[in-house]
Amino acid sequence: MGDGCFSASGVWAPAVTALRDDLSIDHQRSVTHIRRLLDGGCHGVLVFGTTGEATSFAVAERQALLDEVLAAGVDPARLMIGTGCCALTDTVTLTRHAIAAGCRRILVVPPFYYKNPGEDGLFRGYAELIERVGAADLGLFFYHFPRLSTVPIAHPLIQRVRAAYPGVVAGLKDSSGDWQSTASFIEAFPDLAILAGTEKLLSRVLAAGGAGTISASANIGAAGIRRVYDLSMQRNPAAATAQRAIDAVRDALERWPMIAALKQYLAERDAAPGWCRLRPPLCTLDGNAAEALRVALRDAGL
Amino acid sequence: MGDGCFSASGVWAPAVTALRDDLSIDHQRSVTHIRRLLDGGCHGVLVFGTTGEATSFAVAERQALLDEVLAAGVDPARLMIGTGCCALTDTVTLTRHAIAAGCRRILVVPPFYYKNPGEDGLFRGYAELIERVGAADLGLFFYHFPRLSTVPIAHPLIQRVRAAYPGVVAGLKDSSGDWQSTASFIEAFPDLAILAGTEKLLSRVLAAGGAGTISASANIGAAGIRRVYDLSMQRNPAAATAQRAIDAVRDALERWPMIAALKQYLAERDAAPGWCRLRPPLCTLDGNAAEALRVALRDAGL
Repeated sequence: MGDGCFSASGVWAPAVTALRDDLSIDHQRSVTHIRRLLDGGCHGVLVFGTTGEATSFAVAERQALLDEVLAAGVDPARLMIGTGCCALTDTVTLTRHAIAAGCRRILVVPPFYYKNPGEDGLFRGYAELIERVGAADLGLFFYHFPRLSTVPIAHPLIQRVRAAYPGVVAGLKDSSGDWQSTASFIEAFPDLAILAGTEKLLSRVLAAGGAGTISASANIGAAGIRRVYDLSMQRNPAAATAQRAIDAVRDALERWPMIAALKQYLAERDAAPGWCRLRPPLCTLDGNAAEALRVALRDAGL
Repeated sequence: MGDGCFSASGVWAPAVTALRDDLSIDHQRSVTHIRRLLDGGCHGVLVFGTTGEATSFAVAERQALLDEVLAAGVDPARLMIGTGCCALTDTVTLTRHAIAAGCRRILVVPPFYYKNPGEDGLFRGYAELIERVGAADLGLFFYHFPRLSTVPIAHPLIQRVRAAYPGVVAGLKDSSGDWQSTASFIEAFPDLAILAGTEKLLSRVLAAGGAGTISASANIGAAGIRRVYDLSMQRNPAAATAQRAIDAVRDALERWPMIAALKQYLAERDAAPGWCRLRPPLCTLDGNAAEALRVALRDAGL
């Protein structure tokens, strides 16, 4: 599945980002969380995906957190960094910074303000990025998340970028939640690391030859998701039961806005109410929702 | 229509942004264009609206162009500055910079990555912005552009921001293109400056008590739009004929991607092929489209 340095497989958590009272990033709590994820079953961590509220932070804020994560001794080989912005120049700045820091897996959401940009425009954007940062150290992951980015990643775009820049594309995160979509990426690109955005597809992804999952739920339930991964890779029939267990957790989570729900859980687990903070326009769960979430996750076995 | 310093009325152009060969902003050409718009019939110019590819530039690039515009002697009282970003901290940085430079009209698109954020989250975002930049020098314009931002501005949000921060909200740009929408803003907020995003609504906006238009087409056809404004304000029946003339230009333009079409026209008018450049994901018109645009605009009388 691609070059080992740049590929990704297994269970990845898109880390939530902790905030201080003034909504600046709480470096200490965020770094501690990332270390705990890596120690708690995750093969790797995505810093600044959608779940990390990436687009809600300025470039300098994103660079500063990554610097702190690495200063704390986290191995850059276990990280993927989200760098996609609406402004090409911001994407280039963040990508250069991540690569200079030793992080080679770069997840790039397409520019998402203008709608229906067309393949030519998207290709130009990825081509400019690759030309400007240099292809040698870049493991590019496409980010297919049509519900939020509004800009789908189609097969011909991937083929075109690969043809123009051989060896640069390492994989794709498919956050469509749609098995047909994920299956089609796996079938069309067997040598890329295809990761599903939800662990509900994990068993099927692995059975089809996909790489794994980058799942928001792994912020709070990494051990269970890792168990499904390990059992699936061993072709152990217990994988099916384990998959149903993590499905129940996901179903419970999806009844609320995901990032707020994850932070609510962490606030209670760590007895740290500050975990609940989100950058606008996202909002903390209200008291009733928090109580209902608590019950739902307990019923789901978490 | 609100406090005079902060209000806006008449014909405003959301200036296109000229680029150099490396896709950096061509300050000289961009500044010259803005001065020409102000000398050519526009009451004012919006710097960094959608048409100016605002979201395609880094914060520092946006600040640098504004600095150049003002250094060239443009009166900040004739400007409105787009500052809305996905990251609250970027919006605050750009807004503080614009206000410090003497620009008080600030157009703020809501954060547009997360979908269906809800009124509470949007309110929090605007409230944080106002608290952080200070209310005294801020004339806030909401930006209702659901097709691109995906986040509509609803009446209750406006009412809530106005109640919490009296005197701060100066107006709204309605880029829905929907007369019912614009009419409802004018009716609900008679003391705000409501500006339509298309000059096709200009006569109706003025007749209903609205303030005017901020129209992409004014980049190339400001004189005609100004004529409709002046005739309408004089209640001169010739306004209807003039409105039909500018409608024909707009109809022609709308057959192509707007920003690319405007830049194509300017490239030919100024014999400056560099005008055609756009930041990805937007694309220059191809030769066939450019020729068809030329014919269509000529037939429309431009």
